[in-house]
Amino acid sequence: MRILVVNVNTTPSITDAIGAQAAAVASPGTEIVPLTPAFGAESVEGNYESYLAALAVMEAVRAYPEPFDAVIQAGYGEHGREGLQELLDVPVVDITEAAASTAMYLGRSYSVVTTLDRTVPLIEERLHVAGLSARCASVRASGLPVLALEEDEETTVEAIVEQAVRAVEDDRAEVICLGCGGMAGLAERVVERTGVPVVDGVGAAVTIAESLVRLGLSTSKVRTYAPPRPKAILNWPPEYAV
Amino acid sequence: MRILVVNVNTTPSITDAIGAQAAAVASPGTEIVPLTPAFGAESVEGNYESYLAALAVMEAVRAYPEPFDAVIQAGYGEHGREGLQELLDVPVVDITEAAASTAMYLGRSYSVVTTLDRTVPLIEERLHVAGLSARCASVRASGLPVLALEEDEETTVEAIVEQAVRAVEDDRAEVICLGCGGMAGLAERVVERTGVPVVDGVGAAVTIAESLVRLGLSTSKVRTYAPPRPKAILNWPPEYAV
Amino acid sequence: MRILVVNVNTTPSITDAIGAQAAAVASPGTEIVPLTPAFGAESVEGNYESYLAALAVMEAVRAYPEPFDAVIQAGYGEHGREGLQELLDVPVVDITEAAASTAMYLGRSYSVVTTLDRTVPLIEERLHVAGLSARCASVRASGLPVLALEEDEETTVEAIVEQAVRAVEDDRAEVICLGCGGMAGLAERVVERTGVPVVDGVGAAVTIAESLVRLGLSTSKVRTYAPPRPKAILNWPPEYAV
Amino acid sequence: MRILVVNVNTTPSITDAIGAQAAAVASPGTEIVPLTPAFGAESVEGNYESYLAALAVMEAVRAYPEPFDAVIQAGYGEHGREGLQELLDVPVVDITEAAASTAMYLGRSYSVVTTLDRTVPLIEERLHVAGLSARCASVRASGLPVLALEEDEETTVEAIVEQAVRAVEDDRAEVICLGCGGMAGLAERVVERTGVPVVDGVGAAVTIAESLVRLGLSTSKVRTYAPPRPKAILNWPPEYAV
Amino acid sequence: MRILVVNVNTTPSITDAIGAQAAAVASPGTEIVPLTPAFGAESVEGNYESYLAALAVMEAVRAYPEPFDAVIQAGYGEHGREGLQELLDVPVVDITEAAASTAMYLGRSYSVVTTLDRTVPLIEERLHVAGLSARCASVRASGLPVLALEEDEETTVEAIVEQAVRAVEDDRAEVICLGCGGMAGLAERVVERTGVPVVDGVGAAVTIAESLVRLGLSTSKVRTYAPPRPKAILNWPPEYAV
Amino acid sequence: MRILVVNVNTTPSITDAIGAQAAAVASPGTEIVPLTPAFGAESVEGNYESYLAALAVMEAVRAYPEPFDAVIQAGYGEHGREGLQELLDVPVVDITEAAASTAMYLGRSYSVVTTLDRTVPLIEERLHVAGLSARCASVRASGLPVLALEEDEETTVEAIVEQAVRAVEDDRAEVICLGCGGMAGLAERVVERTGVPVVDGVGAAVTIAESLVRLGLSTSKVRTYAPPRPKAILNWPPEYAV
Repeated sequence: MRILVVNVNTTPSITDAIGAQAAAVASPGTEIVPLTPAFGAESVEGNYESYLAALAVMEAVRAYPEPFDAVIQAGYGEHGREGLQELLDVPVVDITEAAASTAMYLGRSYSVVTTLDRTVPLIEERLHVAGLSARCASVRASGLPVLALEEDEETTVEAIVEQAVRAVEDDRAEVICLGCGGMAGLAERVVERTGVPVVDGVGAAVTIAESLVRLGLSTSKVRTYAPPRPKAILNWPPEYAV
Repeated sequence: MRILVVNVNTTPSITDAIGAQAAAVASPGTEIVPLTPAFGAESVEGNYESYLAALAVMEAVRAYPEPFDAVIQAGYGEHGREGLQELLDVPVVDITEAAASTAMYLGRSYSVVTTLDRTVPLIEERLHVAGLSARCASVRASGLPVLALEEDEETTVEAIVEQAVRAVEDDRAEVICLGCGGMAGLAERVVERTGVPVVDGVGAAVTIAESLVRLGLSTSKVRTYAPPRPKAILNWPPEYAV
Repeated sequence: MRILVVNVNTTPSITDAIGAQAAAVASPGTEIVPLTPAFGAESVEGNYESYLAALAVMEAVRAYPEPFDAVIQAGYGEHGREGLQELLDVPVVDITEAAASTAMYLGRSYSVVTTLDRTVPLIEERLHVAGLSARCASVRASGLPVLALEEDEETTVEAIVEQAVRAVEDDRAEVICLGCGGMAGLAERVVERTGVPVVDGVGAAVTIAESLVRLGLSTSKVRTYAPPRPKAILNWPPEYAV
Repeated sequence: MRILVVNVNTTPSITDAIGAQAAAVASPGTEIVPLTPAFGAESVEGNYESYLAALAVMEAVRAYPEPFDAVIQAGYGEHGREGLQELLDVPVVDITEAAASTAMYLGRSYSVVTTLDRTVPLIEERLHVAGLSARCASVRASGLPVLALEEDEETTVEAIVEQAVRAVEDDRAEVICLGCGGMAGLAERVVERTGVPVVDGVGAAVTIAESLVRLGLSTSKVRTYAPPRPKAILNWPPEYAV
Repeated sequence: MRILVVNVNTTPSITDAIGAQAAAVASPGTEIVPLTPAFGAESVEGNYESYLAALAVMEAVRAYPEPFDAVIQAGYGEHGREGLQELLDVPVVDITEAAASTAMYLGRSYSVVTTLDRTVPLIEERLHVAGLSARCASVRASGLPVLALEEDEETTVEAIVEQAVRAVEDDRAEVICLGCGGMAGLAERVVERTGVPVVDGVGAAVTIAESLVRLGLSTSKVRTYAPPRPKAILNWPPEYAV
Repeated sequence: MRILVVNVNTTPSITDAIGAQAAAVASPGTEIVPLTPAFGAESVEGNYESYLAALAVMEAVRAYPEPFDAVIQAGYGEHGREGLQELLDVPVVDITEAAASTAMYLGRSYSVVTTLDRTVPLIEERLHVAGLSARCASVRASGLPVLALEEDEETTVEAIVEQAVRAVEDDRAEVICLGCGGMAGLAERVVERTGVPVVDGVGAAVTIAESLVRLGLSTSKVRTYAPPRPKAILNWPPEYAV
């Protein structure tokens, strides 16, 4: 099967990292196709950029010329998953939700460790809307911007571990979710330092997407995610996004 | 003061109706500027179209060349308000929230009567995210598409009244919110038939926007709605939206 | 239009301060009539005194001999608003709710800074009953009794600012509500020190009351706030309250 | 021990009925003292009357000249319990809460059958504030005013049974609470017709009050229910209430 | 009347302590019968042991040869109460719930102080399932295993008091529940040190069980707690449990 | 990898059906080992039987002599998962939760269609405890006992379809979960009749268990699911269960 893994940021090196992370988890026979949006912010860290990413991800998927079996939206706490579900017949998996639903099988409560303080509310709201927040102990910010994650691994690990430890000790989390696509690859280090399971959203999303396809299940079209009604759409999509 | 009232649909006649509705409520000295987005669906009735509207509204506001004091997003249950709040220093008022917060001063519970069944979840989620759903008795669909609202007033009124009556009797609503910008002007008819106060979101939003300006209050910039960080934005906005 | 602004305390200097605060915000053409109850505590800081104030406010309004267009109950976290709504045909606005619903347009979460620790639960419960607590980050006590607020402005400001800063930093509030009618006039000082918008309930209530009147909206009489049924009322009101 | 059972209505025949109901349940050695307030409505069926009753009950208790060990507020869904708790050192039990906490030992969910539709919201809010609503399946109105309950027992039983049956069948209630002090004595008839346990609040409250006294427990004075601070109270209580 | 008080642990000295505690509270005329299960852990401190205790308590009750009027399950946060309710016609009272519902009459919020950190989630979940968690300020662990409670009273008291004080000061609890059957007898010491009412679950449960019997109330058999349907049960109960 | 799939009922034909269902979904290389408990009810339809099943499943797993990689508890709404998580180092997946978390990727809300009315509360509580109930539209009973499911497929399908249709139309469910291990194999028929995705818990659980193993994730041992402390366990397990 073929799974599109769509970065929400327009930085290709992040797409590469996400793609590698997904491929490492994918079953034999699964082709991972990483996509970078044709427009939007180099890193998504707030509502404006997230709304931009929502549309850019949708258009990236619509512009993809080959058939595919599932789509993963690889951004933490971002808008847009519902729109993709309307546009597509195949399953859509958001990594924020994938990490959360996976973590809930591993412990009574989980915390998310993310990048900037300002992205905490976005993640909290997405978990809330997804109905997955009842066992969320906390969402904590490491203070590192998305693009800094790749710069100095030691600093990155330290900042994440510090918050993960506080989540386990103060917030009583029993599982940690790495709250940014760009954190792929750090899970092992955080496990070592905290002693609790650490979930990477991209990997979790790959297994869920594969599972849905294997079970022959896809988005319900009965109400919320019915295809858009036929109607005039003005000036959209922009040419470069087709 | 000048208030931008931005339609989420790209149909100019709806913009006109919304603008007239807003102007009818505005204080002397308030200039209402109705705006139509440069891209997007002729009517917004689902998540894809709503995400498109979210961005289109933001760009319409950014492209407006004169100073202004507040912005009203005139769509019911639509995405995007948080992005506008990041981009602007002036207050932003969403009509879904304006109708709800106003209704809560009038009765113990309120219901929203909207257009299509498929838009019900969008409205429910926006009220939920806004923290205004605790006293929402129900969101009910009249079954009428947005563009049909203007076609035959009798049919429209009947369909809305039917749901409003059920909301009051079965769901124990004590106030009705008209859940679509295009319903402006029907309030009086619904009051006659149900005996409960009926709130039009556009009118409510005008008074709230004026009030915030008068009180010298605007969006907190301390965390969630801080301005976007300076960074590279690829291929955006499209030329026609500038 | 004429708006009655009813103090919950029987201390006239607080009535004066509240009246001045309301008048400063009122539109041209709005007459603010401050009222002091004919019975009750000099300052309201607990349930017994609050229940007493509830009745005293109702009787003060009933005893007012002229027509009026709206009533503001100017006490933070006090009982009684529902009773006023039953007795009157005009809109009733509670300042606790006015501050909260206004704050929700300004940031994702708000905190209330009030007087004594013992009044915190009253405010929390009123916000809960009003359906406005979902985005309340915290209610914090400055430790100052109501009557001390006017004594030494520096001490008052310091005590309030200290809690406001903790609300913003520890509780993640993005807006501060001044949780006592007697705090009118301190908003600017708290803004300076915290950098977040500060909402005064009296001012917010004036704009909401004016808005409801302007929109032609008043309390729904269909169920919860229907007028009391005609029946024998024993020994009430006391003569001095008429 | 001596327990004051305070009617919220000023109708002495209701006080008698409540007193008899309480006495029938009381342990040997418990003296039940029924009290009628010195002011207020002949029957309490709404917020205004309920706020009046809140104060009237407090003053009735304060005016009682002998020592006592506990107080029962015998009104369903009425305001005031918190004020009594501040004023007294002995335990205070509200019959709405007593019925609910007792019902929760008998089935997974309970419904309340009360008098008029307009009192439903009062009961819902009191249960909500008391933290006892999570297992409340519904609050249903029989449509009978308080004073009609004593008029025609057959009509009364029929109206209550009809709602009780719907609560069990439609709302999945497993226990019924009789939601009015004046319904005392009907429990057996409702049990016969519904097959589920029926809780009378007055009886439940007597056993809880006795239990608290026996366990040597009374209201915590550490914060919410601390005694009122010493201060000037203007014109209160009225002479006839002393 | 005769009340069975069933220990969840298989340690007879704990049964003795619980029985003494119950007897001290019981009314004249109430016979307390303490029971120790025929199988299970010497002390219950986690889910496996708790599930074992659930069955062992049910079998201990079923094996009891004489008639009885009520059953108390004397374990804090343990599974099983629902099963007992299905098997029996007489009322069943869990001490976790008894302590909570009693505490709610004494203050606006309560905290539980229990033994090990690992039992905190069990207690939280039982309170949640019971619908009694809305006013639970916190569940705190003293760090002492069940069997250590009896060893050194000073250490035990200190550890419990430390958490109780933090519950009152930091979590704003107004009442403390002693969250372990083995803590019986320490209440007075904790009251002295915290100044708030302290509820022992065993004592509270005895008064509730007696009250239900006195009121002629027992478990609703209409749905959730209907008797098990007749069917083949393989290999159960074990011989030693009969 | 080897996955144990443990029936909660002691009826071997149900174990066979569950095993076949699991094997049909399992990846190549996954060995499904169906287990029947050594004690307990032939069908589990209530709390007593469910608590019995909880222990019986734990002992069945402990008695299994070979190594294994994950365990699936194949009962809908049953107790016990938390105990298994304490006892084992490998992941544990409950089919109730597996169906729910899978359904949440497919639609905005889901309903469960189960067997008897009396099992509805068990399922609701397990979903609630699991933090997966926020998007549960309803749990509906078909009225068929577990053992009747295999008797007459037409009757079974009709009864389930009737409730599924009502869930979609009246409760606004967008996905249906088949709420009984014994319903395996009916999914396709229900899809045909309702037009919404239908999730079978056993199949969903197999994919989740495989995914967790593949991701190298297992139960957090830091608090709630830490292994039982070493201690004396009296008379357990029974000989026939070893």
